Amino acid sequence: MRKVFNFSAGPAMVAEEVLLQAQAEMLDWQDTGMSIMELSHRGPEFKKVVDQAEADLRELMVIPKNYYVLFLAGGASTQFAMVPLNLLATNKKADYIDTGIWSKKAIAEAKRYGNVHIAAQLDESDVRLRIPSQTVWSQRKDAAYVHYTPNETIGGVEFHWLPQTGNIPLVADMSSSILSRPIDVSAYGIIYAGAQKNIGQAGITLVIIRDDLVKEPLPGTPTLYQYLIQAENKSFYNTPPTYSWYIASLTLAWMKRQGGVKVFAERNQRKAQKLYDVIDNSSDFYVNPVDPECRSRMNVPFNLKTDELTALFLDEAKKAGLTNLRGHKLVGGVRASIYNPMPEEGVNALVDFMREFAKKYG
Amino acid sequence: MRKVFNFSAGPAMVAEEVLLQAQAEMLDWQDTGMSIMELSHRGPEFKKVVDQAEADLRELMVIPKNYYVLFLAGGASTQFAMVPLNLLATNKKADYIDTGIWSKKAIAEAKRYGNVHIAAQLDESDVRLRIPSQTVWSQRKDAAYVHYTPNETIGGVEFHWLPQTGNIPLVADMSSSILSRPIDVSAYGIIYAGAQKNIGQAGITLVIIRDDLVKEPLPGTPTLYQYLIQAENKSFYNTPPTYSWYIASLTLAWMKRQGGVKVFAERNQRKAQKLYDVIDNSSDFYVNPVDPECRSRMNVPFNLKTDELTALFLDEAKKAGLTNLRGHKLVGGVRASIYNPMPEEGVNALVDFMREFAKKYG
Repeated sequence: MRKVFNFSAGPAMVAEEVLLQAQAEMLDWQDTGMSIMELSHRGPEFKKVVDQAEADLRELMVIPKNYYVLFLAGGASTQFAMVPLNLLATNKKADYIDTGIWSKKAIAEAKRYGNVHIAAQLDESDVRLRIPSQTVWSQRKDAAYVHYTPNETIGGVEFHWLPQTGNIPLVADMSSSILSRPIDVSAYGIIYAGAQKNIGQAGITLVIIRDDLVKEPLPGTPTLYQYLIQAENKSFYNTPPTYSWYIASLTLAWMKRQGGVKVFAERNQRKAQKLYDVIDNSSDFYVNPVDPECRSRMNVPFNLKTDELTALFLDEAKKAGLTNLRGHKLVGGVRASIYNPMPEEGVNALVDFMREFAKKYG
Repeated sequence: MRKVFNFSAGPAMVAEEVLLQAQAEMLDWQDTGMSIMELSHRGPEFKKVVDQAEADLRELMVIPKNYYVLFLAGGASTQFAMVPLNLLATNKKADYIDTGIWSKKAIAEAKRYGNVHIAAQLDESDVRLRIPSQTVWSQRKDAAYVHYTPNETIGGVEFHWLPQTGNIPLVADMSSSILSRPIDVSAYGIIYAGAQKNIGQAGITLVIIRDDLVKEPLPGTPTLYQYLIQAENKSFYNTPPTYSWYIASLTLAWMKRQGGVKVFAERNQRKAQKLYDVIDNSSDFYVNPVDPECRSRMNVPFNLKTDELTALFLDEAKKAGLTNLRGHKLVGGVRASIYNPMPEEGVNALVDFMREFAKKYG
């Protein structure tokens, strides 16, 4: 078992089995005498990795046949530009749901390319952050798409329901929640996710896109930012980040061996509940700022009463082998990110530590 | 010693020492209890990797202080767009030197953003491919920059002299020749290179850019494609490809331990000469299509008389542990890519094999 549990928001923990396999194969992948990182992306060996990764992902997420699966270089921030560049060529209107810092980043980039309307915004007027119900959203009937962020990594705010957008394509930045629970892919136009939280290591971003949305982009769109080019070339227009793709493939295979998305969903639910329970039963020693109905199961942020206590918490946690718990610099406090590869043992250790710490300093 | 020598054009061989170190550190990087791929890009641990990589690169290439060093996600093809998008905002004129397939790709992308003039083109009229001397180039005096490809990976054509462009910034796609010989960085405006040939694994591209060229880009340039944003954020605007960066850092450190760029330049010269010697002394059993004055020291392409003989050569070479020698699909034949991490033993083994093969079938 790992001697350290790493609660980083991303890059984040990778399953130990995946690391052990990558380690074992480092100098000789499947008797080729070469590391997978040394192999041509166009060769038959790497094609096996790619084909298996796509097959496993399609099986895990039950992806319909009319969706392309792309593995593109860079992080999810590339998609903040690619989505509007590719979807706003004929209709400039895009609706965005703003539930936090990552939504705002997607919005800022989209505004450079189209007519962006914020159809709903996180309700910060109440004591706790709350996603407004869809009944009060101001969606436009003629938008080219609606973009939302199912899980906000920094705020720890998550949708536990699916927005209904009728015929208007729904676009989701699932960087921090992909593969964490079963979803109905057919309800989405585009799903994208950086790999460094639930699918392995940084450097590659997954894009699942319905085939009718793969079309002529805005003029001037860089070639590599065109879904059309990437789909036609099966993400091989230029040299892809092969090792990141390989680690993603190992992670997907590991997920299958563990029993698939449903098993992880149950595990993630238990992991998050344990943390929220210790927070809610701490007599406000720990405070989570999010309404229970939209708390994240992936990122659990909480505050302590003073900066000194927070610093002490982070320091003692690190000594106990519980690392990278510092909240994002924009919000401060503490944040435990508990993606699929975080084992329940890690959460149990954190829960025990939190109880002890509250007892000691409460 | 490696049991297989991999002559792939990229992704390509990585130094064995680098792979062994990566393997040893896979589950526990410097006593953190974590893999480097699991560590936050914003943490102090990864900063050590980044700072050391930049310091080593600056030392190896003697990079002046007025140059930024960026490590950007994606391959060199991203730069085909970034260069014109960032350099043509006020002056749309760009001169390009076309010496092969990679030059043509850069040219095609630049034409989408500016007024591109081909100032010189590979001379294919002669028996052997030849880079025209600069005396016959038709450079424009008011171009925003001149772009060239010092080494053409597919054609095996290399500049062994530095184009003189006066006050006009010289931009070089050094993907397949960076760090293979000493160069005068101050003679360039921008040097860029995908990492998967001489600097490790795919997924990251190095950009060395003179500070006065970091400026307002064309309107609509995606945020991540802006040198200004990337330079201001030290390549950390969004999550970078951390593991590719780490492998680059290990490769740069290995180069330093080996004695630096001069040592590799001598080694590369010897390696290439051995191959050209066996080709030139084969009574046309092997033919290299490039004028000796502009033959590449990184990629040595050659042809055999028939497709059948080529297929047999590739098949028998593979059985002898000499792999990925197939020429690029656009030109066929055989190609031996012999970047820095290819040891001299690998070239010796190939030379011996070529002699034997020519004796047997010649």
